Amino acid sequence: MVSRTRVYLDHNATAPLHPAAREAMCAAFDLCGNASSVHAEGRTARAIIEAARAEVAAFAGIAPKNVVFTSGGTEALNLALTPSIETPDEKRPFGLLVASAGEHPAVLAGHRFGLAQLELAGLTSRGVLNIGALGAILARASAAGHRIMLALQAANNETGVIQPVAAAAAMVHAAGGFLVCDAVQAAGRIDCDTGSLGADAIVVSAHKFGGPKGAGVLCFGSDSYYIREALLRGGGQERGLRAGTENVAGIAGMAAALAAAKARLREETAALSVWRDELEAEISRVAAGAVFFGAGAERLPNTSCFAVPGIEAQVLIIALDMEGIAVSSGSACSSGTVKHSHVLSAMGVEPEVARGAIRVSLGWNSRREDCVSFVEVLERTLSTIRARQDKSAA
Amino acid sequence: MVSRTRVYLDHNATAPLHPAAREAMCAAFDLCGNASSVHAEGRTARAIIEAARAEVAAFAGIAPKNVVFTSGGTEALNLALTPSIETPDEKRPFGLLVASAGEHPAVLAGHRFGLAQLELAGLTSRGVLNIGALGAILARASAAGHRIMLALQAANNETGVIQPVAAAAAMVHAAGGFLVCDAVQAAGRIDCDTGSLGADAIVVSAHKFGGPKGAGVLCFGSDSYYIREALLRGGGQERGLRAGTENVAGIAGMAAALAAAKARLREETAALSVWRDELEAEISRVAAGAVFFGAGAERLPNTSCFAVPGIEAQVLIIALDMEGIAVSSGSACSSGTVKHSHVLSAMGVEPEVARGAIRVSLGWNSRREDCVSFVEVLERTLSTIRARQDKSAA
Repeated sequence: MVSRTRVYLDHNATAPLHPAAREAMCAAFDLCGNASSVHAEGRTARAIIEAARAEVAAFAGIAPKNVVFTSGGTEALNLALTPSIETPDEKRPFGLLVASAGEHPAVLAGHRFGLAQLELAGLTSRGVLNIGALGAILARASAAGHRIMLALQAANNETGVIQPVAAAAAMVHAAGGFLVCDAVQAAGRIDCDTGSLGADAIVVSAHKFGGPKGAGVLCFGSDSYYIREALLRGGGQERGLRAGTENVAGIAGMAAALAAAKARLREETAALSVWRDELEAEISRVAAGAVFFGAGAERLPNTSCFAVPGIEAQVLIIALDMEGIAVSSGSACSSGTVKHSHVLSAMGVEPEVARGAIRVSLGWNSRREDCVSFVEVLERTLSTIRARQDKSAA
Repeated sequence: MVSRTRVYLDHNATAPLHPAAREAMCAAFDLCGNASSVHAEGRTARAIIEAARAEVAAFAGIAPKNVVFTSGGTEALNLALTPSIETPDEKRPFGLLVASAGEHPAVLAGHRFGLAQLELAGLTSRGVLNIGALGAILARASAAGHRIMLALQAANNETGVIQPVAAAAAMVHAAGGFLVCDAVQAAGRIDCDTGSLGADAIVVSAHKFGGPKGAGVLCFGSDSYYIREALLRGGGQERGLRAGTENVAGIAGMAAALAAAKARLREETAALSVWRDELEAEISRVAAGAVFFGAGAERLPNTSCFAVPGIEAQVLIIALDMEGIAVSSGSACSSGTVKHSHVLSAMGVEPEVARGAIRVSLGWNSRREDCVSFVEVLERTLSTIRARQDKSAA
């Protein structure tokens, strides 16, 4: 368990492993089969994988055969973002990848689309996909005869802003296109049924909702989609879509964490959104002028992204860390590099404000007391930083 | 632990998780950081990864920075087999991938080489790369002005035959080429130092030597090699060579298993090779005319691949499985498909003989009694099968 001497509020970077996931993984560790082997050990490994597949399929509202296990969200996105997805009515490769400007770097890399084939649709100041901008891009691409893939997050990793996936899906489908929804931050936190999202494919990463790192999934919304060229080729696992010996324990852990998340979803959503709102009110109290990014939009119940005027995020994060509080300055994925958030930039946030952005993200083991501790420490830390600032200005 | 009511002799498909790996993984499960986060939890995750990197680097005889963690051997091979590896003296893309005909399907898929850019070098009847054939291909490719990558296993997964990597390396280097060595079956069983192999890169998979499934590594033999185009792109982890949140527990488990394998290597090699030789003598006794593939060549100490004339492998494997013995009919990677072994075919083994191929592979938890049990059950099973055959022939 995470030590309670620390307050961990960085679930959007990675969540602590849920006990149900740990238990499923340790049970899998006791077995030793390769799921492709015909003997009893192999068949047992296969059975664990197929049970997990059924669990993930139920979560996404799809048939089990449309679940492709990967090593994580990044790999699943790298696999999905390819011109070569076949659909029943269309074998032509996709000519254009459209992505919202707030997508994760794993999407913005373009993958098997050349960067010249990538076009960004902007965000509003509230952090929501600009539907008008998307419409204009789709119209232009359709006129140019391009088959279009749209990559759109279910919810943004930095701000928690929920994106209008169903509305975008209707538009992209009307243009004959295909929607890949990055549900990495949404899964386990809000409903991610492929059907209600309107997505043709969704991507999930286990470690964001209490599953293990190193496990993710690409879910297709229909039996009739297929990727002609797998990204990892070799032994033909996952219907030829993802070669490599299956990570049985990781897959089992992901399914167990997903089941646990599903079971607590309603209760957790209710609790976290109350705590988050209280937290923001308290932050406003102790940090006058604090700006909450995306606060005007519908957000994940667990995320708050804010800046305190005149306070650098890096200074605050390090000071909070020394006081036992773990939060981040946005995405954790860019290997310790400190750079401006492309998400806040796309929302039109001024660089000097964005430099102060702190992300607090709650999760399965969060308690109201964590938020209370955060505010107490924040208040104390801000006075210390400001006293130091006043001193050096004097 | 693996139940001792069963005898598991399929370590080349996957080895049971070693207790040291399990312990390292469970310790990592207690932590919750994303290694890219700046707070204490993130730094702890980073420290675990870097300690594992140092362990793997020592194993491969390289600098830690040349270790790239992946989700397994297949991914590492998919990453390495690309025309776009830069070396100090040569920025031209590779024009030709040469592979031995006995390579794993993860190599024979060619990956980012087109299949038209793939040329196979044959095996001798003993299962060893035909050095003469390789020489001819290299001469032809050099004359055509191609920069060459050679993919060669350290040891074959089906027969255990050790390949002449150092000799092939000398030849490919003389031709200005680059050698990627698939050490998936060799790692933890024989010395895999990059320098002594003469390889420019080696690939390892954790689950073959007691580490977890879902962890592998690509090791570069020099600081100055770089892949211009990563296979998984996004957050920039692993020096930009492999995006995706690091599987901290998997990486820690792999390093722990590797350390354990290193510690027992000499003793285990001595024991397994004696048991394997005894096993083959006993198989010959109970199954007259049994053929041992690659027996004339230098082999891994743990592997025996044989056929009993007139006995189909599938029939024998299922019968052995029912008696509590887990062995395989060669590679486990092809998802339950029964097809002729391309390795035995490349060795010139007749299809009717190859159809009987059984692979017995020992490992870290094998005991001499396992081999004794195997022979007892084999003898009994063969009589049953033969009695049934005689009856249906009568």
